Amino acid sequence: MSNIVYIATSLDGYIAREDGSIDWLMEIPNPDNSDYGFSIFLERIDGIVMGRNTFETVLGFNEWPYPKSKPIFVLSNSLNVVPGNLSAKVEIVKGELKSIIESLKHKGMNDLYIDGGKTIQSFLKEDLIDEITITKIPILLGSGIPLFSKNNLELKFEHAETVVHNNILVKSKYLRKR
Amino acid sequence: MSNIVYIATSLDGYIAREDGSIDWLMEIPNPDNSDYGFSIFLERIDGIVMGRNTFETVLGFNEWPYPKSKPIFVLSNSLNVVPGNLSAKVEIVKGELKSIIESLKHKGMNDLYIDGGKTIQSFLKEDLIDEITITKIPILLGSGIPLFSKNNLELKFEHAETVVHNNILVKSKYLRKR
Repeated sequence: MSNIVYIATSLDGYIAREDGSIDWLMEIPNPDNSDYGFSIFLERIDGIVMGRNTFETVLGFNEWPYPKSKPIFVLSNSLNVVPGNLSAKVEIVKGELKSIIESLKHKGMNDLYIDGGKTIQSFLKEDLIDEITITKIPILLGSGIPLFSKNNLELKFEHAETVVHNNILVKSKYLRKR
Repeated sequence: MSNIVYIATSLDGYIAREDGSIDWLMEIPNPDNSDYGFSIFLERIDGIVMGRNTFETVLGFNEWPYPKSKPIFVLSNSLNVVPGNLSAKVEIVKGELKSIIESLKHKGMNDLYIDGGKTIQSFLKEDLIDEITITKIPILLGSGIPLFSKNNLELKFEHAETVVHNNILVKSKYLRKR
């Protein structure tokens, strides 16, 4: 049972520009049109947890970037209604993080993909992340939306694996050491 | 002719705790008592540039951590006197970064090791860094002194090499792409 982060950041730790854009990520040369293991990762997970911000960003995409078979849980105390065409796969969840996770695990959602900066930070604040894969993009953005926030807990991890893709992307996987 | 950063950070990008301590770095198991290539790196460089903060921290160490043969340049507009036993190898430099670097290069200081958080940030703000090696320590500190600061320039790099030491440390070298 794992809560898993799988994300790309700039060398200075940003997941997007201040305005949310990820052009710097999309313009990385990708001659083989590879997803660098993302679809294999998605097969492992039972569901996806994200915040309202990420959900609304994803709603604006032309294509739904997650597998249609995986349920989405949107953490939001303000949202109440899911857009009609998504109501079968998206559920709004409210309340305390620990009890949300517990009830999801009871539903068989053992391995959860935790997505979105704020959501990841809330999970880290309660030591609820078990695995982090970070892909480093060779750029300093200078400003943006950070993956990690100040005043998170001190948390030790074990290095599990590092893979370099196309001599550009450095993808490292870490497991929480408890 | 390169200005080079060679540094370790936590996964969340800190080079030290808020109080400057690096106990989390020192306690990483190191059964072979390796320096992970640091002494080989030092052979390459002609001199070391650091700020007053780093210089004063290093003065407090039991042992001088840099090779005795390499001259040290301390960037400081307030310091005037170097402690007597160090005056042969330490020089205080003042003024604008670009002209300091130019005059050091004229003295044959082609490859400079740029050390200390604030100094590295000032160099990055003027796009004066040519090479960065970052060793990632598998810990989230939650707070501390960051390697990178907000409002630095956007700067693209090329990935040169990644080496994993002891299945713990991920050391990646990047070259500025101009």
